[in-house]
Amino acid sequence: MPTGKLQVVPLGGLGEFGMNCMAVRWGDDIIVIDAGLMFPESELLGVDIVVPDITYLLENRSKVRAIVLTHGHEDHIGGLPWILSELNVPVWGTEFTLAYVENKLEEHGLLDNAILEEIVPGERFQIGTFTIDPIQVTHSLVDCVALAVHTPVGVIIHTGDFKVDPTPTDNRLFDLHTFAEYGKQGVLALFQDSTNVERPGYTPSERAVRRKFDDVFRATKRRLFISCFSSSIHRIKLAIDMAFEYNRKVALVGRSMNESTEIAQDLGYLDIPEGLLIHPGQIKDFPPERVCVMISGTQGEPMSGLSRAAVDQHKHAKIERDDTVVLSSRIIPGNEKAIYRMIDHLFRREAHVIYEDGSSPPVHVSGHASQEELKLIINLVKPRYFIPVHGEYRQLRRHGEMAAAMHGAVGSVIQIESGDVLEFDELGARKAGKVTVGRICIDSGSRTDVVEDLIIKDRRHLSEDGIVLPIIAINKLTGQVESAPEIVTRGFAAGGENGFMQEARGVVMKTLDESTQEEKGDYGVIKEKIRADLKRYIVKNTQRRPLIMPVILEV
Amino acid sequence: MPTGKLQVVPLGGLGEFGMNCMAVRWGDDIIVIDAGLMFPESELLGVDIVVPDITYLLENRSKVRAIVLTHGHEDHIGGLPWILSELNVPVWGTEFTLAYVENKLEEHGLLDNAILEEIVPGERFQIGTFTIDPIQVTHSLVDCVALAVHTPVGVIIHTGDFKVDPTPTDNRLFDLHTFAEYGKQGVLALFQDSTNVERPGYTPSERAVRRKFDDVFRATKRRLFISCFSSSIHRIKLAIDMAFEYNRKVALVGRSMNESTEIAQDLGYLDIPEGLLIHPGQIKDFPPERVCVMISGTQGEPMSGLSRAAVDQHKHAKIERDDTVVLSSRIIPGNEKAIYRMIDHLFRREAHVIYEDGSSPPVHVSGHASQEELKLIINLVKPRYFIPVHGEYRQLRRHGEMAAAMHGAVGSVIQIESGDVLEFDELGARKAGKVTVGRICIDSGSRTDVVEDLIIKDRRHLSEDGIVLPIIAINKLTGQVESAPEIVTRGFAAGGENGFMQEARGVVMKTLDESTQEEKGDYGVIKEKIRADLKRYIVKNTQRRPLIMPVILEV
Repeated sequence: MPTGKLQVVPLGGLGEFGMNCMAVRWGDDIIVIDAGLMFPESELLGVDIVVPDITYLLENRSKVRAIVLTHGHEDHIGGLPWILSELNVPVWGTEFTLAYVENKLEEHGLLDNAILEEIVPGERFQIGTFTIDPIQVTHSLVDCVALAVHTPVGVIIHTGDFKVDPTPTDNRLFDLHTFAEYGKQGVLALFQDSTNVERPGYTPSERAVRRKFDDVFRATKRRLFISCFSSSIHRIKLAIDMAFEYNRKVALVGRSMNESTEIAQDLGYLDIPEGLLIHPGQIKDFPPERVCVMISGTQGEPMSGLSRAAVDQHKHAKIERDDTVVLSSRIIPGNEKAIYRMIDHLFRREAHVIYEDGSSPPVHVSGHASQEELKLIINLVKPRYFIPVHGEYRQLRRHGEMAAAMHGAVGSVIQIESGDVLEFDELGARKAGKVTVGRICIDSGSRTDVVEDLIIKDRRHLSEDGIVLPIIAINKLTGQVESAPEIVTRGFAAGGENGFMQEARGVVMKTLDESTQEEKGDYGVIKEKIRADLKRYIVKNTQRRPLIMPVILEV
Repeated sequence: MPTGKLQVVPLGGLGEFGMNCMAVRWGDDIIVIDAGLMFPESELLGVDIVVPDITYLLENRSKVRAIVLTHGHEDHIGGLPWILSELNVPVWGTEFTLAYVENKLEEHGLLDNAILEEIVPGERFQIGTFTIDPIQVTHSLVDCVALAVHTPVGVIIHTGDFKVDPTPTDNRLFDLHTFAEYGKQGVLALFQDSTNVERPGYTPSERAVRRKFDDVFRATKRRLFISCFSSSIHRIKLAIDMAFEYNRKVALVGRSMNESTEIAQDLGYLDIPEGLLIHPGQIKDFPPERVCVMISGTQGEPMSGLSRAAVDQHKHAKIERDDTVVLSSRIIPGNEKAIYRMIDHLFRREAHVIYEDGSSPPVHVSGHASQEELKLIINLVKPRYFIPVHGEYRQLRRHGEMAAAMHGAVGSVIQIESGDVLEFDELGARKAGKVTVGRICIDSGSRTDVVEDLIIKDRRHLSEDGIVLPIIAINKLTGQVESAPEIVTRGFAAGGENGFMQEARGVVMKTLDESTQEEKGDYGVIKEKIRADLKRYIVKNTQRRPLIMPVILEV
């Protein structure tokens, strides 16, 4: 038996939703599994994204050998620019995952110096002490893997995000056999995705959505708008296939929708017939019944294509009476108000809106395993130790309780949270102390800018750039602005001239003047517009980047 | 045929959730059906409740004859103090509804001058031109009625809130026969509740919860905490009956829970065996397996009994390892984050938490009619005109579409929103103009104060009292406050002395010092505590009531 200790240290994602990141260490070798971001809680106004504090990695800078990615979702790769700018180590991922990573790094000017290594499911690779075996799994995204990591004290398996889809649209099956094989040989620890542990039964296959799409394509007499997460390649493929079948041209609206489609096409996940795609500017040139628009913005994000189209502020995507709008996505908790506000706007345009309302066939299916799938994997792997990952505290607890009841399949369950050090040696496993973890807030500027440098605005530096609060009184019903906007600042001085503040108020007034009643009635939209415009003005005139938090008062 | 016009004018609740209020006018007679409030959107920090603008009623002050209430929920009666203080007209309601109204008016010092008239289901009464026939319906609350209003141009029926519960716990059945009778005689217009129009099928009976409660009472080995809406008399009755059956004493924690139970007992809806109730202070005197605590706070409201107990800050309600906590309520959209945060705290206390997660039997059932019940009532009533009420825009639209497809049962569907004037005469019905409507924001002060005067803080008067923004930088992970709190003000001057602001910062610092790590990690809680304490200090020292909006910066 080797002497030494294996340490597993989650730096994010355990006890919180998103920001998945986990260090695995043996002596002088550290690998990092995933490097995600999270979207901030609504209380954190003025912050765009949140990434994990990597103090632990920086303190062990010389030992960090690589970052290994399970798949290309933001909560698994979104923190990469931030981490690589501090610690430029090789990044391993599957072909598709790396395509997303490349785009992301290029945006932030980090691609030239990045070292990207491709993973092929089933082909083992070595990093320091560790041999890593990527296992093909199914999920809402394509080209996803679980990771079996061979360590001196045994094999640990990290599932990444997964569901067990028996009929994936790309026909790349979940590799149950390899999980089974490891289970036979003996697995030290299984780290399993907890996202859907509260759901009984089985998550339906991606193909379950097809019946609903069929109904919609058949029934729709005019323009058809379909919105889904841009990373839902399965969903995009389905929509494009059906558009072809039903003789509709396809326009892609939204940057992320275009990027994803391009990557998927390059890598052979999408086979788009010649001449099917049209430019959004051509939508008006085709009869309404011959057009399908794939548009981003399922979560009611204020500046997304669909949000703008819903208030008739999109140049090309015009939604008219009797058009159909399909939201093929989940309503993420916390976004309900924004999403339903957007849906209300769509109804006011007299569109038919199809969204997840519990009816069958479903217009969206989850990408995460439900209880029976989780149990299936546990039964295959039969780990000595079971550790729930990816979830809020209650989900980790429920997942742990579920596994603990599976006598014969699970040795014991260990409950850890971000920052806990979980230690394995020949005697067993235990929690052994804590490392520094935390959340770093990043204000990446207006999301409307196509490419913008990553600006790390650690709030500890707030005192340097200060805070700016534009205060606007809006009459909700009339949409009228009731008084001149006020601007309150703290720790932010614009050279002492009064003219600057006067002009800043003018900027806010202009934004308000140029917004429609509907936009002004939607606080999410109007706040974001004010923030973006005011930010542009302030950065240009002062080269400083204060935190800007619009405050709406309803009168 | 009479000459004249019947006008129906919704002043709130159509195109928004809550704040239900509708004027019905013939010549010089106006009656108002319901006078509700709404809880503000999260964007409206610092506002407690929102009530409808009653300009229309005030402009026709001499014509308003009465307010008629359908039932005692806040979104139907919560605006009464505000309206009566401007316009003191008689208020009609059932016995139970009036008991709630009395408590509410007494709190605001309005009871002595109020004129309350009791409604008995099935007994008609006259107000001006109108004869009103209250029809018994079932809902999550008891003693609810629909209203058939006889007007010179025909009968209109307003359903109020309802479900068609075939087995209500109080055995007071939904009066289907009267609806049928009106349908036979002919109904001019039906105004029907749209809340659950998106749900297919039938809403389960209140009794469906009993099976779940049975499971829980049987399985629970230690203390049992049950939280439900305080107005859910059916649910409270069920819990109390089962506590008696399973030999547990019952403690009521939370003011609203005590009030509701007292009213229900007085009016014979609850029959609590002698000696079953104990004071919260006695919880510790009984063995854990002999206690059931009914506690308020299902929505994660920061200052509620359950939220405080979840972070171990309640004097009497201590939640310990292996206790069970039941959330027998709906997760209201917009409250998810607060509720799940509270549930996480409960899991950290190692309690078993039972909440609505889609499993069966249900721990909560809705009080509103699903599609099949809505259709049933439409079939019984067969109205010439159908008008959806109570709902957001998309719900009104879907409800209208559903009814429009019911040929033979519905003449035509008219879609109106708050502020529209709907006019009926011998020729038919049409929209005829608009009246002023809007939302008035009320800041009733800290919710922790037991009794406090209603303070109408119309935001139009903001310039008088100004705005105060305490800014606090908290390290989420450590719960540490990273720098001294800042206070930014606008339009608020505290006599010019610097000492005041210094002291105000001290107040905030003290609140932070006296809060636990868990409270500081829960932004909702800590904001509310800071707001309450700072408000008390400012009101005491300046007699002014600025808008106070704490801003948390995560570092």
